[in-house]
Amino acid sequence: MVVVAFSDEVTETPLARQILGDRVVLYRAEDGAPVMLADRCPHRAVPLSKGKRVCDDRIRCPYHGLEFDRTGACVLIPSQKQIPQMMRTHSYPLVEKWKWIWAWMGDPELADEALIPDHNLFGLADGDGFRKGVRFLMNIGGNYQFLHENLLDASHISFLHEGCFDSGKIVETPAETQVEGNVIRITRKVTETPDGAFARVFGLPEGVTVSRELVSATWIPSLDVVSNYFRFPEKPDHPVMCLHTSFAITPETDTSCHYFVAASSNYGTAPSDEEWKAENQFLWDVLLTDKAAIEWIQQSYPDMGSKTPDVSVRADEAALRFRRMLEQQLLRESESAAAKPSR
Amino acid sequence: MVVVAFSDEVTETPLARQILGDRVVLYRAEDGAPVMLADRCPHRAVPLSKGKRVCDDRIRCPYHGLEFDRTGACVLIPSQKQIPQMMRTHSYPLVEKWKWIWAWMGDPELADEALIPDHNLFGLADGDGFRKGVRFLMNIGGNYQFLHENLLDASHISFLHEGCFDSGKIVETPAETQVEGNVIRITRKVTETPDGAFARVFGLPEGVTVSRELVSATWIPSLDVVSNYFRFPEKPDHPVMCLHTSFAITPETDTSCHYFVAASSNYGTAPSDEEWKAENQFLWDVLLTDKAAIEWIQQSYPDMGSKTPDVSVRADEAALRFRRMLEQQLLRESESAAAKPSR
Amino acid sequence: MVVVAFSDEVTETPLARQILGDRVVLYRAEDGAPVMLADRCPHRAVPLSKGKRVCDDRIRCPYHGLEFDRTGACVLIPSQKQIPQMMRTHSYPLVEKWKWIWAWMGDPELADEALIPDHNLFGLADGDGFRKGVRFLMNIGGNYQFLHENLLDASHISFLHEGCFDSGKIVETPAETQVEGNVIRITRKVTETPDGAFARVFGLPEGVTVSRELVSATWIPSLDVVSNYFRFPEKPDHPVMCLHTSFAITPETDTSCHYFVAASSNYGTAPSDEEWKAENQFLWDVLLTDKAAIEWIQQSYPDMGSKTPDVSVRADEAALRFRRMLEQQLLRESESAAAKPSR
Repeated sequence: MVVVAFSDEVTETPLARQILGDRVVLYRAEDGAPVMLADRCPHRAVPLSKGKRVCDDRIRCPYHGLEFDRTGACVLIPSQKQIPQMMRTHSYPLVEKWKWIWAWMGDPELADEALIPDHNLFGLADGDGFRKGVRFLMNIGGNYQFLHENLLDASHISFLHEGCFDSGKIVETPAETQVEGNVIRITRKVTETPDGAFARVFGLPEGVTVSRELVSATWIPSLDVVSNYFRFPEKPDHPVMCLHTSFAITPETDTSCHYFVAASSNYGTAPSDEEWKAENQFLWDVLLTDKAAIEWIQQSYPDMGSKTPDVSVRADEAALRFRRMLEQQLLRESESAAAKPSR
Repeated sequence: MVVVAFSDEVTETPLARQILGDRVVLYRAEDGAPVMLADRCPHRAVPLSKGKRVCDDRIRCPYHGLEFDRTGACVLIPSQKQIPQMMRTHSYPLVEKWKWIWAWMGDPELADEALIPDHNLFGLADGDGFRKGVRFLMNIGGNYQFLHENLLDASHISFLHEGCFDSGKIVETPAETQVEGNVIRITRKVTETPDGAFARVFGLPEGVTVSRELVSATWIPSLDVVSNYFRFPEKPDHPVMCLHTSFAITPETDTSCHYFVAASSNYGTAPSDEEWKAENQFLWDVLLTDKAAIEWIQQSYPDMGSKTPDVSVRADEAALRFRRMLEQQLLRESESAAAKPSR
Repeated sequence: MVVVAFSDEVTETPLARQILGDRVVLYRAEDGAPVMLADRCPHRAVPLSKGKRVCDDRIRCPYHGLEFDRTGACVLIPSQKQIPQMMRTHSYPLVEKWKWIWAWMGDPELADEALIPDHNLFGLADGDGFRKGVRFLMNIGGNYQFLHENLLDASHISFLHEGCFDSGKIVETPAETQVEGNVIRITRKVTETPDGAFARVFGLPEGVTVSRELVSATWIPSLDVVSNYFRFPEKPDHPVMCLHTSFAITPETDTSCHYFVAASSNYGTAPSDEEWKAENQFLWDVLLTDKAAIEWIQQSYPDMGSKTPDVSVRADEAALRFRRMLEQQLLRESESAAAKPSR
């Protein structure tokens, strides 16, 4: 399953979005449930999102007034009483978790909520005591795999994000890669003395040496979590400071993706509106360099695909595992779809 | 034949336009006759419309000064005396009728002026006593068939044009469809009490009940006329008020078309310039919603064609007949072109 | 070989450019040598031009800090010591001549500096006594062949450049065409009395009759030189005034090219900065009409190629020879590439 929106983006005003190439419309029924339908009236192909009216759980096409309910079934044709069975649009199974709306894009009968990662693992469960900070959506003009590989390969932060996330040491720090089910986890341990932007982004005291554990975990194919654990060698009693930054990555098209960013920490107090805006803005500005890099790469691959003619280095180990595991996962899914008795 | 311009658009200053995919240049010869040529110098492919000079009936290419007359023949090559026979560009047969210029886009030998609908049928003949009102050209980013179907299916006016052209009753009113030659005519009869915009657009008194006959007629493949006849049940002696709104629809490309709009009525006085501008503006603004709808539809069909995977309703009867008749007409035309002895 | 830049465009700040479809990056090493590399890091395809740092002769990729030297070899991978042999990008052989940088775009082993035309022939050698005037780069949205043909066919100047380069007589003046090796030379002789813009652009006295020799020479496939020789019949002792305008034409893509313009004369004094700017601006404005013409033509050819369905006239003789010679040259080059033993 993939994240398709933040909860507060989905209201009674229809929202048009493209997900894995599908044009969809998201809205919230009067009883509060989110709804996601294929954004195309089956009658004459007008996008349902162009209609401005949601009533109960029904969305109305602006052209001829046909109405569809949350199951995608047409429930009103103003010009006649009988409703053809074929007059329906696809409805996608949704799960709302923390402030994220997850959707199942495949055959609804195969939808499986258990595929959503346990949000307790990265501090995004309600009432888990973690301080929820940054939360924003960025659109990136590149294939979603480039973005996963970006997050799995922390060595880039010493260059692309020079001075923002480390003191230049991450690139030289050896990494350990672990695979468990559909999760790849890559871990680095390094001693640093944060300063400037680097101290600010993590809320660390400046000039105090920390023992840092940096873990990039990818739940293939939809979520990356970068976790930082800071210990203080000079103050062994100081509690471990932990910051999770979660990145839900959802393809928009073959050459673009949605980047849902959220951070949570076991330290700090709930931010005021102003603090929250400033935190969002700071990380937004830093991630614009990733957005630029991904878009540069996309423009360099005229014929993008999983087989890129890259020359790899050792720091790409996790990224290469990611590519293989993703390919296997896609293969398994197409096989299980083929094995399903046809309706 | 198709409408390619309003008369007053064609002057001694060349006008570039695309018609059925052909790039053409329109201009008026000094004797007043309109000329339409393929907009490409046969020498080095420069568009003739880029030349600013028309002299007698000749248009001059701005690159090397070659001149072409109304037949498309080259009549001057400044750098030499002999003119190769091949040095000619296509000239399209034209007919100027009322304020419209009709063109024959196929083989000139098959051009047949009799294919132009009789303008007396919709109040656009000179001296027919009808008041000529609105007259404008709108460019629409969608296939021309969508626009014909829009006009043949009046049920959309209760939704897309809510409050502008009816009191919400048209969608529920049964329609009768007639076919005669290449004309489809769909008729609805309804009793309404106009108010607000609806009364204004038709020049009807507010709050007075009318018996309305609404006829959408399509001359395949180029013209739609929507005719409204208003009778006054409470004043049987009041003359029938009749308003024709004519829509000449000409493909520009596969995914765009020209929309030539003109209205005429058997009532009202000749408009002042200001009234005329206001009438034009009002209808223009309303038709922008049709333009939007057609462009939404176009964007929803990645591979447009006559075979759309729509689910149809009873109100689409005329539109479906239109599709079949258009297909047959295109088939007949390609057969007659094939049957013609080659030159 | 083709001109890829003016010397002063290439500095320690990387310059991205597209040449014959290749994306390249140009920069200057600390020892002053120009470098041109394929603009793509072999690791993850990021354009090297996005990196802002050149050190010695090395350019650094902004994503993971890999560094490449002037030969295209990777010389630093920050995350590891060993450098895979495959980690290299293409380096193009360059020659800097006068203020132009010429590049060899094919197999480096076949690079041959002797293919660069002798700059003494058109007043662009250092210390040749010629006054160097105009110098600018214009990008044109059309295939480079159209531009060569434009320069070989002087008859267009009587129309497209009416009043700027002649008194309207060039189109009627017969031309003589000569071929020598890969050079086509077309010569016209005409007597004119310059005035206005025509006198100004050549720095000629107004109202004085001149005997003019106009030569367009094309070194296939990369350079055109238009030379004007003015003699004064009434003052036989007056030295011949000679102005060469050189046009290096380099394809950017199939449908666009770079137009490097430079002028030099055997008369006049070295221009001040202001005079130089004014001369540049004047010729720039005139050449914008050529740019427009080439772009009109490009838009008229949906499927461009060397075989255009043009109808030609006698004035096209040189242009047609150019096409044939270019075709033969391309054929010979592909044969010699095929004949080379594979590595």
